[in-house]
Amino acid sequence: MREFNYPKTVEIMLQFIRHKVDASGADGVVIGLSGGVDSAVSTSLAAKALGADRVHAYYMPYKTSSELSLIHAQELADSCNIKLEIINITNIVDAIANTMDETFGSTLSTADNASKKLRMGNIAARSRMISLFDRSKVMNALVQGTSNKTEILLGYGTWYGDSASSFNPLGELYKTEVWGVAKVLDVPKSIINKPPTADLWEGQTDEGELGMGYLECDKILHAMEELPQNDSARLVQRLVGQGFNQGVVETVVSRVVGNAFKRNLPQSIRPIYRHT
Amino acid sequence: MREFNYPKTVEIMLQFIRHKVDASGADGVVIGLSGGVDSAVSTSLAAKALGADRVHAYYMPYKTSSELSLIHAQELADSCNIKLEIINITNIVDAIANTMDETFGSTLSTADNASKKLRMGNIAARSRMISLFDRSKVMNALVQGTSNKTEILLGYGTWYGDSASSFNPLGELYKTEVWGVAKVLDVPKSIINKPPTADLWEGQTDEGELGMGYLECDKILHAMEELPQNDSARLVQRLVGQGFNQGVVETVVSRVVGNAFKRNLPQSIRPIYRHT
Repeated sequence: MREFNYPKTVEIMLQFIRHKVDASGADGVVIGLSGGVDSAVSTSLAAKALGADRVHAYYMPYKTSSELSLIHAQELADSCNIKLEIINITNIVDAIANTMDETFGSTLSTADNASKKLRMGNIAARSRMISLFDRSKVMNALVQGTSNKTEILLGYGTWYGDSASSFNPLGELYKTEVWGVAKVLDVPKSIINKPPTADLWEGQTDEGELGMGYLECDKILHAMEELPQNDSARLVQRLVGQGFNQGVVETVVSRVVGNAFKRNLPQSIRPIYRHT
Repeated sequence: MREFNYPKTVEIMLQFIRHKVDASGADGVVIGLSGGVDSAVSTSLAAKALGADRVHAYYMPYKTSSELSLIHAQELADSCNIKLEIINITNIVDAIANTMDETFGSTLSTADNASKKLRMGNIAARSRMISLFDRSKVMNALVQGTSNKTEILLGYGTWYGDSASSFNPLGELYKTEVWGVAKVLDVPKSIINKPPTADLWEGQTDEGELGMGYLECDKILHAMEELPQNDSARLVQRLVGQGFNQGVVETVVSRVVGNAFKRNLPQSIRPIYRHT
């Protein structure tokens, strides 16, 4: 058995943030605050590591974003003494959707099915990435990431979108561990206790969309760490043998394998030389 | 000495493209055609590997893009029997610039200095990335990259922008080797012979902006491959000792070292566990 050492982990994460910023010659970090627990923890760590005035937090709503998300983002910013700025990405996302619509004659901007919702979600995530990296240039800051290990492994995020950052202190923490760190950091309870959501449409929750709870999912992901990954069928069999629900295991394994490409740089191939 | 084996290299690149597309279950590839030699070679390889009807090529101009770029992109598409589609990114880029201007009271959209030009260039490159990845979803296709090894090593490109792709057949080829492959593939001479440019503003050329020629640069980068990279000052000294120009060597080494982060995924840090 292993037990998460919260105080020591927080300590090395603070050192990690300071080291990344100092080593790059940056003045601080920019972070996208969504109102959720991941960006709350990332921001809270940054404020503790660097001081509040070196942390630039941005809430970046689309026109369909929930009012509650802003309330939670503001609550977190207040708790860290950070000034929260708002970048409304509606005109950006709509310009992209309209450009694609006008060029190809689709109706992306009135997203009415699952595939279009997914495309709009990717466009929103990448528009936020562009906004943050632009701010990072102006502020001479790094973009501090907010993706946890669970969503990275599941591929539950947008490649070159929300997973794109300069560095990411949360990338090796499972979602349930992020909740644990949130408690240690005194993140407001309203943020810790709310159901995780990407806030892409009304009523969306991660666990509803993934079809499983994070607690069960993280247990499976952790068990997978100890097992060989090369044979998916055998992997599923062994996890089910450990007592996990077969349907959930199949979902997890298929997501981890199918989204492996998102955890890698684009591959290339080496040319062939004649040695003379 | 080593000598580039063009026929064999082209052969394995065609196999690599087929393998990446087949293994992912995609129907083909989408590629951004700029009118330059890198995207011309990438597209020509894709057409040979997959057949012209499985290659979807997009020319994505901003309002300041040169007319000549479109002419060259069309010429390449015609030479491969590929239909070229045009996605005008002007409204997208301007929506981003206006959003940043309105929110922060700057004047990004009338880029009038080096820092603003750089920001506009990054916004344009990332807007193209978004457009290509959106098309890739619609076409069930992979985004085939067009970045060569020289620009990747120099960091002469936009992180999460033009360097973002699903896979990139050119990523291990120096710029001068891309020119060589272009000749073997019968890429139109007008494209091979024109001065490389990112076409971000009128009269821009890569070699002017980088302050060196690609031939000299590639020789230095190749010589660097054989040398230890940990001590920059010593590295410069050894390259100058091989007869390279000190100023150019310093530029190359400082770019390669300073942009190393662009060739990596965002770093994270592992938490600490107590084992009980």
